[in-house]
Amino acid sequence: MNTGVLGSGMVGQAISARLAELGHDVMIGSRDSKKLSDWHAAHRDVRIGSFEEAAAHGEILFNATNGAASLDALKMAGESNVNGKVLVDISNPLDFSKGMPPSLLVTNTDSLGERIQRAFPAVKVVKALNTVTAPLMVNPHKVAGGDHHLFICGDDEIAKEKVTELLKGFGWTHLIDLGDITNARATEGVLPLWVRLYGRLGTAMFNFKIVQ
Amino acid sequence: MNTGVLGSGMVGQAISARLAELGHDVMIGSRDSKKLSDWHAAHRDVRIGSFEEAAAHGEILFNATNGAASLDALKMAGESNVNGKVLVDISNPLDFSKGMPPSLLVTNTDSLGERIQRAFPAVKVVKALNTVTAPLMVNPHKVAGGDHHLFICGDDEIAKEKVTELLKGFGWTHLIDLGDITNARATEGVLPLWVRLYGRLGTAMFNFKIVQ
Repeated sequence: MNTGVLGSGMVGQAISARLAELGHDVMIGSRDSKKLSDWHAAHRDVRIGSFEEAAAHGEILFNATNGAASLDALKMAGESNVNGKVLVDISNPLDFSKGMPPSLLVTNTDSLGERIQRAFPAVKVVKALNTVTAPLMVNPHKVAGGDHHLFICGDDEIAKEKVTELLKGFGWTHLIDLGDITNARATEGVLPLWVRLYGRLGTAMFNFKIVQ
Repeated sequence: MNTGVLGSGMVGQAISARLAELGHDVMIGSRDSKKLSDWHAAHRDVRIGSFEEAAAHGEILFNATNGAASLDALKMAGESNVNGKVLVDISNPLDFSKGMPPSLLVTNTDSLGERIQRAFPAVKVVKALNTVTAPLMVNPHKVAGGDHHLFICGDDEIAKEKVTELLKGFGWTHLIDLGDITNARATEGVLPLWVRLYGRLGTAMFNFKIVQ
């Protein structure tokens, strides 16, 4: 499938490389594609473009941009390139301006996932993958054989089914659909705990398993 | 040990009954102790009193009151009865005024744990147990043989050691000390996810296990 990945940091690179490995036709979009030249040399199977080009290329899109810049990045991608498409929103509204650990720019009675959905009502936003580190997003088996959970939410049921198929392709077996996009409040809200566990455990290679 | 439990709802009852079972001399404090008469008939080993009496009785105190009312309850308990003591703060600042699922009354850059610590600087506040349902707080083995995690935080290291001993007595083996009381932002911040998982799973008998 043609996929477009917005954002060329650690998350965008991991998602793009994994999608290409799984046989998808991927374009990674960046504000400044020149900085991807070294990475591209090792990943010739991923196309490089602008936000606009990557959004136009993908049937399914991934928002892997910095949460503080996501709305701007999607505006740069262009409404005509994103409308009607599924957008997997991986971003977190982390605020590093007050030092470490980061707090959240939007929280509790709103979320970045909802802000994106409100700003782009014709986009089918599915919040997912934002509660794990990049290498684990695309290969959950790297921790405990994949025996841990991923939360997804979004308003469009068919969009969630499509994203679920992609996530299964990444190796995810334990998905919990929390419901509509307002549930992004909960999955973004777990980041303050995540960043502290990262500090305490000394590794980002961990995840939450829900045990009953 | 003499322990005082402030709050006579499901959490206060579970904590009090378990402490008594473990041989502690427990007083449960309530705004209206009459409503405990039926419960007391089945738990004669727990003393019944006012917030003030329970706080005076305990060497270690538990805040098991409704988060929205915790500061008032502690004021009713009286500074002279709480100062210098360890207070295990189990409360969550849940706001049910906007319907279900609840949001938080304080979040992100502050927490109820911190507010209690600021309001009662001579109390040694240890945030703990607020991320699991009452029956699991006092008997973690009821889920997955106890193989799941509890987070604690607080400014006073010796207070955290004392609380850790009590929690081990309850059966907890997987404790993660997140650091000072500001980390209550993270453990209270997980409640929006907790309440949604409760809804999705159809049971409160679950917990988070951190897998690496």
